[in-house]
Amino acid sequence: MFAKVVRKILILESDLDNTHDTFHRAIRPFIVVGQLFGIFPIAGIFSNNARHVRVDWFSVRVILNLVIIGAGSFNMITEIQRLRTIGISAKNINHLVFLIDACLISTLFLRMATQWQRVAIKWSQVDKIFLSESYRICSWWTLKRKIWFTAGLLLLLACGEHILSIVNTLSDQQHEIRHCGWEQNVTDMFRHFALRKFANVYSYFPYSSYSAGFFMFVSSALTLYWNYLDIFIILLSIAIATRFNQIHKHIQTIAQGVFASNEQFWIRVRSDYVSVCELLDEVDRVVSWIMLISCATNLYFICLQILNVSQKLRYVMNDVYYCFSLLFLIGRTVTMFLCAASIHEAAKKPLDVVTKIPNSGWCVELDRFATQLKSETVALSGMGFFHITRQLLFSMAGTIVTYELVMLKFDRQSEGKGYIRPCSFFEIEKKWLTGK
Amino acid sequence: MFAKVVRKILILESDLDNTHDTFHRAIRPFIVVGQLFGIFPIAGIFSNNARHVRVDWFSVRVILNLVIIGAGSFNMITEIQRLRTIGISAKNINHLVFLIDACLISTLFLRMATQWQRVAIKWSQVDKIFLSESYRICSWWTLKRKIWFTAGLLLLLACGEHILSIVNTLSDQQHEIRHCGWEQNVTDMFRHFALRKFANVYSYFPYSSYSAGFFMFVSSALTLYWNYLDIFIILLSIAIATRFNQIHKHIQTIAQGVFASNEQFWIRVRSDYVSVCELLDEVDRVVSWIMLISCATNLYFICLQILNVSQKLRYVMNDVYYCFSLLFLIGRTVTMFLCAASIHEAAKKPLDVVTKIPNSGWCVELDRFATQLKSETVALSGMGFFHITRQLLFSMAGTIVTYELVMLKFDRQSEGKGYIRPCSFFEIEKKWLTGK
Amino acid sequence: MFAKVVRKILILESDLDNTHDTFHRAIRPFIVVGQLFGIFPIAGIFSNNARHVRVDWFSVRVILNLVIIGAGSFNMITEIQRLRTIGISAKNINHLVFLIDACLISTLFLRMATQWQRVAIKWSQVDKIFLSESYRICSWWTLKRKIWFTAGLLLLLACGEHILSIVNTLSDQQHEIRHCGWEQNVTDMFRHFALRKFANVYSYFPYSSYSAGFFMFVSSALTLYWNYLDIFIILLSIAIATRFNQIHKHIQTIAQGVFASNEQFWIRVRSDYVSVCELLDEVDRVVSWIMLISCATNLYFICLQILNVSQKLRYVMNDVYYCFSLLFLIGRTVTMFLCAASIHEAAKKPLDVVTKIPNSGWCVELDRFATQLKSETVALSGMGFFHITRQLLFSMAGTIVTYELVMLKFDRQSEGKGYIRPCSFFEIEKKWLTGK
Amino acid sequence: MFAKVVRKILILESDLDNTHDTFHRAIRPFIVVGQLFGIFPIAGIFSNNARHVRVDWFSVRVILNLVIIGAGSFNMITEIQRLRTIGISAKNINHLVFLIDACLISTLFLRMATQWQRVAIKWSQVDKIFLSESYRICSWWTLKRKIWFTAGLLLLLACGEHILSIVNTLSDQQHEIRHCGWEQNVTDMFRHFALRKFANVYSYFPYSSYSAGFFMFVSSALTLYWNYLDIFIILLSIAIATRFNQIHKHIQTIAQGVFASNEQFWIRVRSDYVSVCELLDEVDRVVSWIMLISCATNLYFICLQILNVSQKLRYVMNDVYYCFSLLFLIGRTVTMFLCAASIHEAAKKPLDVVTKIPNSGWCVELDRFATQLKSETVALSGMGFFHITRQLLFSMAGTIVTYELVMLKFDRQSEGKGYIRPCSFFEIEKKWLTGK
Repeated sequence: MFAKVVRKILILESDLDNTHDTFHRAIRPFIVVGQLFGIFPIAGIFSNNARHVRVDWFSVRVILNLVIIGAGSFNMITEIQRLRTIGISAKNINHLVFLIDACLISTLFLRMATQWQRVAIKWSQVDKIFLSESYRICSWWTLKRKIWFTAGLLLLLACGEHILSIVNTLSDQQHEIRHCGWEQNVTDMFRHFALRKFANVYSYFPYSSYSAGFFMFVSSALTLYWNYLDIFIILLSIAIATRFNQIHKHIQTIAQGVFASNEQFWIRVRSDYVSVCELLDEVDRVVSWIMLISCATNLYFICLQILNVSQKLRYVMNDVYYCFSLLFLIGRTVTMFLCAASIHEAAKKPLDVVTKIPNSGWCVELDRFATQLKSETVALSGMGFFHITRQLLFSMAGTIVTYELVMLKFDRQSEGKGYIRPCSFFEIEKKWLTGK
Repeated sequence: MFAKVVRKILILESDLDNTHDTFHRAIRPFIVVGQLFGIFPIAGIFSNNARHVRVDWFSVRVILNLVIIGAGSFNMITEIQRLRTIGISAKNINHLVFLIDACLISTLFLRMATQWQRVAIKWSQVDKIFLSESYRICSWWTLKRKIWFTAGLLLLLACGEHILSIVNTLSDQQHEIRHCGWEQNVTDMFRHFALRKFANVYSYFPYSSYSAGFFMFVSSALTLYWNYLDIFIILLSIAIATRFNQIHKHIQTIAQGVFASNEQFWIRVRSDYVSVCELLDEVDRVVSWIMLISCATNLYFICLQILNVSQKLRYVMNDVYYCFSLLFLIGRTVTMFLCAASIHEAAKKPLDVVTKIPNSGWCVELDRFATQLKSETVALSGMGFFHITRQLLFSMAGTIVTYELVMLKFDRQSEGKGYIRPCSFFEIEKKWLTGK
Repeated sequence: MFAKVVRKILILESDLDNTHDTFHRAIRPFIVVGQLFGIFPIAGIFSNNARHVRVDWFSVRVILNLVIIGAGSFNMITEIQRLRTIGISAKNINHLVFLIDACLISTLFLRMATQWQRVAIKWSQVDKIFLSESYRICSWWTLKRKIWFTAGLLLLLACGEHILSIVNTLSDQQHEIRHCGWEQNVTDMFRHFALRKFANVYSYFPYSSYSAGFFMFVSSALTLYWNYLDIFIILLSIAIATRFNQIHKHIQTIAQGVFASNEQFWIRVRSDYVSVCELLDEVDRVVSWIMLISCATNLYFICLQILNVSQKLRYVMNDVYYCFSLLFLIGRTVTMFLCAASIHEAAKKPLDVVTKIPNSGWCVELDRFATQLKSETVALSGMGFFHITRQLLFSMAGTIVTYELVMLKFDRQSEGKGYIRPCSFFEIEKKWLTGK
Repeated sequence: MFAKVVRKILILESDLDNTHDTFHRAIRPFIVVGQLFGIFPIAGIFSNNARHVRVDWFSVRVILNLVIIGAGSFNMITEIQRLRTIGISAKNINHLVFLIDACLISTLFLRMATQWQRVAIKWSQVDKIFLSESYRICSWWTLKRKIWFTAGLLLLLACGEHILSIVNTLSDQQHEIRHCGWEQNVTDMFRHFALRKFANVYSYFPYSSYSAGFFMFVSSALTLYWNYLDIFIILLSIAIATRFNQIHKHIQTIAQGVFASNEQFWIRVRSDYVSVCELLDEVDRVVSWIMLISCATNLYFICLQILNVSQKLRYVMNDVYYCFSLLFLIGRTVTMFLCAASIHEAAKKPLDVVTKIPNSGWCVELDRFATQLKSETVALSGMGFFHITRQLLFSMAGTIVTYELVMLKFDRQSEGKGYIRPCSFFEIEKKWLTGK
């Protein structure tokens, strides 16, 4: 089956020319990568007919998805148990938040998968319009290349961040082992690592290397989900903004040309513009929940990492990891916001062209088009609570300062709580096992 | 009289078909429930003629209303006296705020009742338009069913919250009785409960089971008022949003049809749209004060309950009650905001249809309609200070964080104040009775 | 001269009928009261020709104005000296702020007086339009009566506040005299009062009852200025809002009538509307500085009085005074904002009428009028930094919470500073006299 | 070469009459001054042909620029080293921020220089339009005089601030020398000054008077950059706002005249208006980064200087310097904002004229012009994150309060850190030299 998948990707992608530069072909490998880790389990992605996109409830995809959600939830419950034992502080709650978040994201993507068919159909209609002769743009930088490059780069960085996180944990454990004189106790490094990292889980049943491997996979998957969410929004935004830009380029060429554009031309342009707006509405309706979750999650983790970085860390490795993690987080969040905001900007651009059209070419249709461009807020929104524009990013930055203040206050109040005495690991493990 | 009321409700409601699906018929049972607890004492609600709606100053309804306001005010004064004796803290002031709030709400509803006739007449005119053949929507989910379901569910939850609050108080008292060794002193549990709960009142005259029953009723009524306020706004919003949605559906059907709509059609649609806007203006003018009070109250109590929940509570029952109460409060407030904001959204929807109308069907009237849809902010407002849209809810959430910070500061400053030493109940009671 | 003034007011005002209900006649007594205390020294207010309004640099009015500014500045300098001796705290700086503020207000009114002629001319033109037959409104509640009533009520309350402030100071001094056993030292109560109240001034030259009387007058004048500022803005706002309301009433009558309004009618209405907008622009340009000062001052003093009230006060008299003062302050500020915001609302009202005009009466002029009503922000502004609408009042309330937090922080930091040991008054006085 | 430059400025500038009042001639001396300190190294500024503007990578200008950036970066790295030794506090981090900032500004100006040709060409086109007969304004206050006066005044004040800063440092050192009894050690005052001021640098190699002179020059240059940035934006804004004002004056004259303006006239006006808008877009795209940096820098340093001023300073000289510096900083920032905001205001002004045009002269072109004036936000923007209008300045002021609170918190947390024991200078120097 693996060979089949690879062949499908290789063969189908290779015949890509400009006329087949659709969004669904471009995003296909990204969805495949996600499905390997059990997220967004839609079937029919290799078909060229958007109507074949569906959720196959008894497929491996969905089962993997549900298994990981299940394992994540189990992790979550044992983590709650652990926190009840050692107490909650501003910092040690973050693992629980991460778990809840990842399970929520996976569930929301499952829900979105059930609604994806409608979006896919609408999208293929829009793609058909914009791959036609009149809108074609001959540039090396096709939609497919843009999406592959962005997704590839961000996934690479996310991998780097995850590996660095593991290295950081290993380094901390090495220091602890040396400090506490556990060198004799710890023979199997992997076993020790897994026992510590999944301490909450292994309080409930004995260790086995299979289960350790499984939980490592689940943990990686959950980390991916979080990145997947942001990258997914970025890719959507790039694709939609590209379509608006094509309209802009198209009318720019005409407006600068010598032959006057007639009303028929503008009727077609406005109808195409409305099509992209409808697609955006459709997408917005479907992604609104994950948009909200993405904003909230990024806001929370940026505040948390600033809190971590602003305090004196013990080892150089910690400094390196937390700084890289914070920078990656900020970079990814800003990229997401700028990409999402670029839809708004691309949708406003045609106004510049319309403004310059001389009086002789003015017609009722142009008047309607101009009014529409001026007054409508064409942008992704978080369930209608806010529109994602550049101004929002600016006010988001102000919000982070406020929430950082709240977090610092909570951190000071919870000082001393949730603190584990050094070298007390094995005792704590015993405590959990005995249940009190 | 009771039988008469029930019969009226049963008979009149049973003949409901779509042509009689008016707002005033739908809201009738909700108003009756309110009047049993002495709020919103309008007469003539069983008549089908909106001109019969009036306030009958010498009716039982109004007298009950005034009696409860009187009892509430007396409660309020004795509570102020109690706070002067024991000192004010961020937490024990909440009962006073609740009493002031409830009396204010009841007074504002009485004032609104005197202005309701004009609203009722306007509403029946609008209902007439939208129950006509052209706007009729054949759906099981009629306005009456929507309103009955929403009101029923929220009233049930409010009852649950009130009962849980009493159970919580009882549980606290049980723990106290056991802790202080009062088992011999306390023989009549109801008497003890009433004496403690209305300690402020019973400092001024001796206990009797009749007066205890009366104050229990007053206390329940005041609790209801607060819920009544929010539910009332929710029901109003649902009814108005439904009318805007009917316009949307109506023009959507026409716009998708093959036969072109002429200017006469749009003249009628715009005039109907203006009618609903006028109704909204009328309603907005009348409910603006209770809208403001509702926002302020919900903001305050959410902050207070977060403060309560964020601190270590003594018993499990307290945890259960405060969590449920906070969730119910947030749920109710969010529902209210989303319903009120749905008016704004429903009023904007026709724009999507108008945008898609082809050039051939464009006319001056459509141009006016489009401009009106784009530029006017059709929404409920808190006296013009703010318009209730989804964006407001978002900025409200930010405000809660700021006020929570202020409240935490005040809570820390007032620490130790307003604290009653355990087992000192009877002494305090004596102290009040002696007046020093 | 006094008799002449009174006669002029009595005679000229008595012949007021609706055709003479101009703003400058209505505001005349208010300006006279101000000039008795040396503020806004414009000459020619008794003439009916707006061109006679001017500043007469060598008149008694201007000289009185300059004398009081001079005395206020001297007061200010000695107060700075006093604060350098005893130290600055969040609370004792308020007298200095008050002095700077009052001198600034007086200077700004003097500057405004030099620009008033242009405003007066424009205003008399607008008044002429709106007192003509077509706009006349037969109501008992004329502009003159509105302005007299508002100004009278607010001036009365301001007097009350000032007297209460003096009573409060006297009561504090009585308590201090009794507490410190100064009964023998203090024989002349007025002398003691003046010496304490103007301690900063009397550190520099010996006491005399004439100078004490003079400084009492200056102090009263400065207190008046602050109220004068707010009342002046309120009166301006009422007058302009009245004109916008006349337009609304005028077109409402026409729009409901049976005979269709022709384009000529709308050309005249729009031109009148533009005239009032031009007047508003003129006024806005002239009052922008005092508008800014008024907002900043009210914000500061509301925060300060909340700080004062929120802390435990020593005597009942203090509680009474500070509560009344805070309530008066909030009441005056809210009134000012609501009046200023009412311009914005009155200017938007004609839109409701224009929306309802049927298609048959629609014309290009109406289209221009509708667009203008929708898109322009017709409102008073604080130098273009903000427009005064109801929404601003709402966000102002939020700002007060933030600034209150800053003030509380500064109050805690400056605790113990600027504190004068009880009964140390005569020593301190000596210290100032010796200069160290 | 120097003589050549001076002659070029003198001769070319002297023949300025109104027809040659272009932006690039006016700004020429300012650019020359900047290039003497190695910033904005564009060549071809003496040519009248905008196409000659370019960056000459192997010219003295660019080399000087790069040398200073290099020296600044070296300074930066040694400062980081110094801070790692003594610890970071809210106050001693400011020198590092200043260095990073200055190097960033210089780099951004270099980047901007490479894009300047396009702006220059567009600008000379616009200037050509507005220096033609119809737009000519005969006023003594030409664009050149406005720009020279503003730039001269601000540069003078900046020089004053820099000199005062040096005097302040010298005075501190004098006090320290006297206090620690170093009179014998310190013989060469300049050497001591340089050693202390560039302590971070001289930890790495021995002192020489040449290098001290060089670092003094670099330090002055970096200080200039910061002022240069703000003044540059101010000059740009004045030039663009002047063009918008010319349009306003032009149509005002016509609109008040007796002869009716025909559609041809408005076609030309609107096309000129669009030209200035296009120029603004071009400029905005190029300066957006330095705009952002300017806002952030000014915000940070205002907060820092308020922090400095709000605390007890040791000597009178410090008080004088910090107060002057804070006032200059606020003054410069407010000027920059008001100038940048004046573009927005000047661009809106024509609306007043258009509103008053009578119905008879109304045409489609005027309708388009009016709509454009109403709905577009014509203003400089910080990369689209915010538009610079007067409202922004207002909300900026609110932001400063919030950030000041954060800074105070950080200052209190870092108390005691980064503190150098008095008279320990030589020891510290030794410590750095020994590297630990």
